[in-house]
Amino acid sequence: MTLPLNPAMAATFPPPVMEARRWIQGLSFPADRPLLNLSQAAPVEPPPAELRAALAEAALHDPQAHLYGPVLGLPALRAEIAAQWSAAYGGRIEPAQVAITQGCNQAFCAIMATLAGAGDEVILPTPWYFNHKMWLDMQGVMAVPLPTGPCLLPDAEEAAALVGPRTRAIVLVSPNNPGGVEYPAATLEAFRDLARARGLALIVDETYRDFDSRTGAPHALFADPDWDGVLVHLYSFSKAYRLTGHRVGAVVASAARLAQIEKFLDTVAICPSQLGQIGALWGIRNLAQWVAGERAEILARRTAMVGGFSALDGWTLLGCGAYFAYVEHPFDTPSDRLAPRLVQEAGVLLLPGTMFQPEGSEAGARQFRMAFANVDQAGIAELFSRLAQVTD
Amino acid sequence: MTLPLNPAMAATFPPPVMEARRWIQGLSFPADRPLLNLSQAAPVEPPPAELRAALAEAALHDPQAHLYGPVLGLPALRAEIAAQWSAAYGGRIEPAQVAITQGCNQAFCAIMATLAGAGDEVILPTPWYFNHKMWLDMQGVMAVPLPTGPCLLPDAEEAAALVGPRTRAIVLVSPNNPGGVEYPAATLEAFRDLARARGLALIVDETYRDFDSRTGAPHALFADPDWDGVLVHLYSFSKAYRLTGHRVGAVVASAARLAQIEKFLDTVAICPSQLGQIGALWGIRNLAQWVAGERAEILARRTAMVGGFSALDGWTLLGCGAYFAYVEHPFDTPSDRLAPRLVQEAGVLLLPGTMFQPEGSEAGARQFRMAFANVDQAGIAELFSRLAQVTD
Repeated sequence: MTLPLNPAMAATFPPPVMEARRWIQGLSFPADRPLLNLSQAAPVEPPPAELRAALAEAALHDPQAHLYGPVLGLPALRAEIAAQWSAAYGGRIEPAQVAITQGCNQAFCAIMATLAGAGDEVILPTPWYFNHKMWLDMQGVMAVPLPTGPCLLPDAEEAAALVGPRTRAIVLVSPNNPGGVEYPAATLEAFRDLARARGLALIVDETYRDFDSRTGAPHALFADPDWDGVLVHLYSFSKAYRLTGHRVGAVVASAARLAQIEKFLDTVAICPSQLGQIGALWGIRNLAQWVAGERAEILARRTAMVGGFSALDGWTLLGCGAYFAYVEHPFDTPSDRLAPRLVQEAGVLLLPGTMFQPEGSEAGARQFRMAFANVDQAGIAELFSRLAQVTD
Repeated sequence: MTLPLNPAMAATFPPPVMEARRWIQGLSFPADRPLLNLSQAAPVEPPPAELRAALAEAALHDPQAHLYGPVLGLPALRAEIAAQWSAAYGGRIEPAQVAITQGCNQAFCAIMATLAGAGDEVILPTPWYFNHKMWLDMQGVMAVPLPTGPCLLPDAEEAAALVGPRTRAIVLVSPNNPGGVEYPAATLEAFRDLARARGLALIVDETYRDFDSRTGAPHALFADPDWDGVLVHLYSFSKAYRLTGHRVGAVVASAARLAQIEKFLDTVAICPSQLGQIGALWGIRNLAQWVAGERAEILARRTAMVGGFSALDGWTLLGCGAYFAYVEHPFDTPSDRLAPRLVQEAGVLLLPGTMFQPEGSEAGARQFRMAFANVDQAGIAELFSRLAQVTD
């Protein structure tokens, strides 16, 4: 007799990034033509030496770094985010409205667990971030796709037509993963108004905010004095501070909502990594200038990507920003079959659009996500030289 | 219009340990009569200096310590657990049958997500570990209580009568939290046979295995060549290695089951803390002798607890082992009202049995859990002197 398998879990797809890793397993790439890995949005270098030293110092001399902390995170980190976000967004955010999680994925799962259970619905613009879809699948929550078309921008009026009696939330990611587009403030505000009018939560995942090409606040959502009646904001320390391996994220929401999240986090996490939080706090207090340099470099790479595609026949750049370019390829072969071939023939690892679109979507078969932030400008030039030689 | 709240989340109780912390907030305790905090099963000292040095070294010089790792954990740590467990339990456990999680609570949630969804049932002996109950509540899974009576040992025949068409798993914790009892090998094997006969998963949480008073393997479950057709084993690095703040746990199960868990962990965690895993690996490789000393000290404290209760009028010690004593008090006042009073009148913080029993249970009102492992023998003597003065 085989053991039971929760059908909702069986129906969830396996982690796309792990699947992509399997495409390169066992392959070797010549030293003069190394693999160009554009599959994962992750720094490939460790954080700056000063941050590493702060972590080492805490590991050696701060006993609390090794012991349980509060479920909702270190008070000093919650307070720092509240203060910096209040200033950056021109609003009022209290420390009690901030919680720390074991990475931003967990922040999403925690907030969603408080909003939607089996049989409920959540609206996700497509292409979507696959881990959002996976969580909804495994909870028996229906992900309702909101197609965005060639501009990759979701439309609040089209979303309104998808709201039904079981709809609980709308999820936006800006700058977008996988699309790379930076949502205009007016788009976010239109969604806020829709969510408020229909009693839904608006979840805005700003994991890539530190690499937005615009200066100043990207939206005025926090300037609304009643923001916490509708808005949930998500953030990650993984990208800006190169702390992916420490798993530190944040959720900003009403204190009452965080009291619900606390149940989830106590059960799934107990507390975030204390050392990770110490590193995040050190980073957010000391690395503003360094992060500005990181942003400038990534924006330069973005410019190189835009330039590269303008000279590449047949491919269409749909969106480009933060860590991502999202593109349409010119071939008849669908992207999920083309992707392993690109590894073998061009030494380029991309994630196919099928991983970001509902099953069977025709759009996904024509698309790729390119996480270009890890590739320097010489690598980007090499990328385009290789892509130019690909044939169907 | 207020935002939606998932009714399954609303129905879940808040974290008991956080509630207990609120009982001591704002209180001060005289220096000559400090608070005796027996509420949480957690080391209060950091890990040994050598382990802290290994963490600092990795933070400074190992770039991988800061970057994403595999979803199912560091291969070296998985292999080390497989080898050590194979030797300790007299069975064959492959590295592919081991996954690492962000703490053992997460291991439980991950495995349970693969087994049971809304409307399913899981059998938990009572008193139960509250985070197990909370996860089942928030998933809409029915926790079916299996009362254990005054010996705190669950009976497989009684469990058999509770198995229905929606039953998916039975969860055992040995040494038990909160009960402190060490389950006899025959008990575990009877449950294994029941689970196998009825197509259920048997989840055995051995978080406190390093403090078992018995020598040798506590059970022969892994000696069964087909163990992975029925058994899921959970472990935590938090207690033995004092790594609570790093959140490192493990799950041992079939490779096919881990492929399902990988979906959950990718979505909720992406990977466990890399530094935490490095610390756990260093500990499990180097600290066997040190852990043996820790165990001897805790067993000495256990003896002091047993002796103390034998001389304390009216109280009954139901179970005592690993980190916990589980007791019946002699008063008319229910334990959940008595607990805050004990803080104020005796300077003793205990968790009431109501936190470990189904709502409205009469048993819970008579019971307390005492997490005594953090209190040295002088503190234990002081504990009994204070308890002797408590009146209703």
